[in-house]
Amino acid sequence: MPRRIVIVGAHAAGVDAAAAARKTDRTAEITLMTKQKHAGYSPCGIPFALGGHIPSFEKLVVFPPSFFRMMKLNLLLETTATNIDTKNKTVEIEDKTGKQETLQYGSLIIATGAYPFVPPIKGREKQGIQVLRTIEDGKKIDQAIANGVKAPVVMGAGLIGLETAVALQERGLRTTVVELLPQILPAMLDADMAKNVQEMLQEKGINIMVSKGVEEFLGTDKVTGIIAGGEQINSDLIIAAFGIRANTELAKKAGIAIGETRGIKTSMRMETNVKDVYAAGDCVESINMVTQRPTLCQLGTTAVKQAKVAGINAAGGYAVFNGVLGSSVTKFFDTEIGVTGLTEFFAKKAGLETVVGRITSKTRPEYYPGGLSIKIKIVVEKESQRLVGAQIIGGEQVTQRINALSFAIQKQMTVRELAKADTAYAPPLNETWEPMVLAAEMALRKLR
Amino acid sequence: MPRRIVIVGAHAAGVDAAAAARKTDRTAEITLMTKQKHAGYSPCGIPFALGGHIPSFEKLVVFPPSFFRMMKLNLLLETTATNIDTKNKTVEIEDKTGKQETLQYGSLIIATGAYPFVPPIKGREKQGIQVLRTIEDGKKIDQAIANGVKAPVVMGAGLIGLETAVALQERGLRTTVVELLPQILPAMLDADMAKNVQEMLQEKGINIMVSKGVEEFLGTDKVTGIIAGGEQINSDLIIAAFGIRANTELAKKAGIAIGETRGIKTSMRMETNVKDVYAAGDCVESINMVTQRPTLCQLGTTAVKQAKVAGINAAGGYAVFNGVLGSSVTKFFDTEIGVTGLTEFFAKKAGLETVVGRITSKTRPEYYPGGLSIKIKIVVEKESQRLVGAQIIGGEQVTQRINALSFAIQKQMTVRELAKADTAYAPPLNETWEPMVLAAEMALRKLR
Repeated sequence: MPRRIVIVGAHAAGVDAAAAARKTDRTAEITLMTKQKHAGYSPCGIPFALGGHIPSFEKLVVFPPSFFRMMKLNLLLETTATNIDTKNKTVEIEDKTGKQETLQYGSLIIATGAYPFVPPIKGREKQGIQVLRTIEDGKKIDQAIANGVKAPVVMGAGLIGLETAVALQERGLRTTVVELLPQILPAMLDADMAKNVQEMLQEKGINIMVSKGVEEFLGTDKVTGIIAGGEQINSDLIIAAFGIRANTELAKKAGIAIGETRGIKTSMRMETNVKDVYAAGDCVESINMVTQRPTLCQLGTTAVKQAKVAGINAAGGYAVFNGVLGSSVTKFFDTEIGVTGLTEFFAKKAGLETVVGRITSKTRPEYYPGGLSIKIKIVVEKESQRLVGAQIIGGEQVTQRINALSFAIQKQMTVRELAKADTAYAPPLNETWEPMVLAAEMALRKLR
Repeated sequence: MPRRIVIVGAHAAGVDAAAAARKTDRTAEITLMTKQKHAGYSPCGIPFALGGHIPSFEKLVVFPPSFFRMMKLNLLLETTATNIDTKNKTVEIEDKTGKQETLQYGSLIIATGAYPFVPPIKGREKQGIQVLRTIEDGKKIDQAIANGVKAPVVMGAGLIGLETAVALQERGLRTTVVELLPQILPAMLDADMAKNVQEMLQEKGINIMVSKGVEEFLGTDKVTGIIAGGEQINSDLIIAAFGIRANTELAKKAGIAIGETRGIKTSMRMETNVKDVYAAGDCVESINMVTQRPTLCQLGTTAVKQAKVAGINAAGGYAVFNGVLGSSVTKFFDTEIGVTGLTEFFAKKAGLETVVGRITSKTRPEYYPGGLSIKIKIVVEKESQRLVGAQIIGGEQVTQRINALSFAIQKQMTVRELAKADTAYAPPLNETWEPMVLAAEMALRKLR
């Protein structure tokens, strides 16, 4: 009898897990499901579709129906998994018509993702508080813009909040962002680096209010404004980007262990505490390679890597996941922003003594037209002199520098080694002295 | 009495050595000299100035006279070092008027660079065989173009030869390149990768003839053509880009040891076999970090790094140079080309058993407009599974991927670690599955 693999979730993690399982076991019966109308699309692309950089939301579907047919994957759309019975190895599902069914599994993969979280603020029950997580959410906001929305407010200055604010501003709307903490991008950048991004966004016309908590949602049935930091802000489009929370309800109900980060705990093989039940993506917790402590790393890149490991193991193969550094980038207007490893703030919070190196340089020699500014901050653990984190803000060439520093952190490169690293240069492409090397020099001065 | 430091050479290595010496010893008397009219300019920029990307050749002067004044460096232009007496610690110099002088030194740094080499081909003595090494060379070719040159020929399809050919083609000339070996860029790329670049250059209109040795220079006094592979090619501008040779005559005459690569041998501190005599840049040999064998790595990035170490040590400080990986990039039209570590060819030549991983991917997701093709080849040592080299050809984002793989090689990353590395992604900036990671996957398949 063929192996039966059931996957709850059919987005980044779910589909990559299914594909890896199929490659590992050509005869397995593989079923995956999603509550949504679309499967296998890129949620990371939604703000960029909203901003007009991608021709349509439909383009975001990376895995079309033909892919699922070709890979012989049984895809169930608008279908919810309601219960897992780990003893009898079954999953109960329900489709949009209310029809229920029980699926038998040999291996189960939980890829339930995360949901946008709205804190318990007065008036939270009012209608019209819009989130941005699915293609449907994106289309709703797009429709609101078409209907003549004037003054949107985004609550939360994290990655999704700001990507959305940038998209709204690009669509010609005067956008306000409200953030509880004293800085933007608090999970990604230190305050000194975030300040540069905030100034750039303000220059582009976005109204950013930091250190302002949302205290109340106003309006009768439908939300028409907020009170933030004591101030009333009326708005015809109120977007909640407070953050996301791992979707673990189904797992919890089935007795699967949840970690201290509120993500599902797994082994290196992405197996939960229950045999033959795996988990991957935004719903699981990961081990940070630097601190060796659990962390929530809710990124697309992490999801697909974990999913591949889960898929291989669920199909009888062998693979392990090594942990995360949280390498992440984005682009706001013409500015690229990236991070890998620990910020100075999170390194201190993890008990590390650090020194930092900061440099502002250019992406080409002075004499070559078109060079853009680039700002690098590296974080170094004091005793080992090892690189533990880096943040970069620049006009170009940020992503692959983040990857380079991610490799360096993973391989425990010291700041002294980085200061002597062999780097590549040509006038149209880089400075003779690579800015990452210069940042290492700056950190070294503080270690002498 | 202040320390006396004499530096023979005032370009990439000479100037960076002088600057490092000054930072190490604020009171030293530092003298540096060059045969040329200009000091402290970027020779790497010359082909790009010729191609019209940089407004003038003068822009290439990175260190203006004010820099030498500010750093209190005694700069002698159009001055030649004719003899070194290592016993009495003196250098004899001669200026353009023929005036001679003897300089006393406490420390000496030899940064004599390299010269463009023309093989002993019949007719080599004829006038008008043009090289491209100095600003003056660049201006001469620029003038020839202004005078109406029609059909230039470049002999040699190395980096300088092709950068020059691209510049000539960009200036509207129908350019021919003649190469003795069966492929272009033989020191940089394997034949399979070079083929892609050759096709692109041919599509841009450059006439490339490989496997054709130059057999004779034609003309009475002045060269008017060549015979290559039995074929006569008439040309009004004949450029020799056969390669460069380390300038070691002065060092040899002074009894300083030369290595098997014909570069000056140095210690990790960049000291020659003679006490207090240092050397740096294109005239020295380096240790390849992978093979641990001597190599000539005549790159600007290597020169400035070695020079810094030489300058610090010459001024009484302490610094070491770790060796090279030969990381190098360039841009031909809209294509970026890069290498780090060993090619498959050179790895085999060094006795390594290897497998390779090749991938062709894109720089953005399919759904995000503007993504460009990128081709990566990695070379992996079979037993250790360590990455030992990489070559990349792409429309963008090549340089920092080369740096990332250089860090990986330096830190002895295995291909398995690379296949699981934590990489960064956002729709406008990269694919979810980083192409370097995919190349590692391809290599892993051959190791299973």
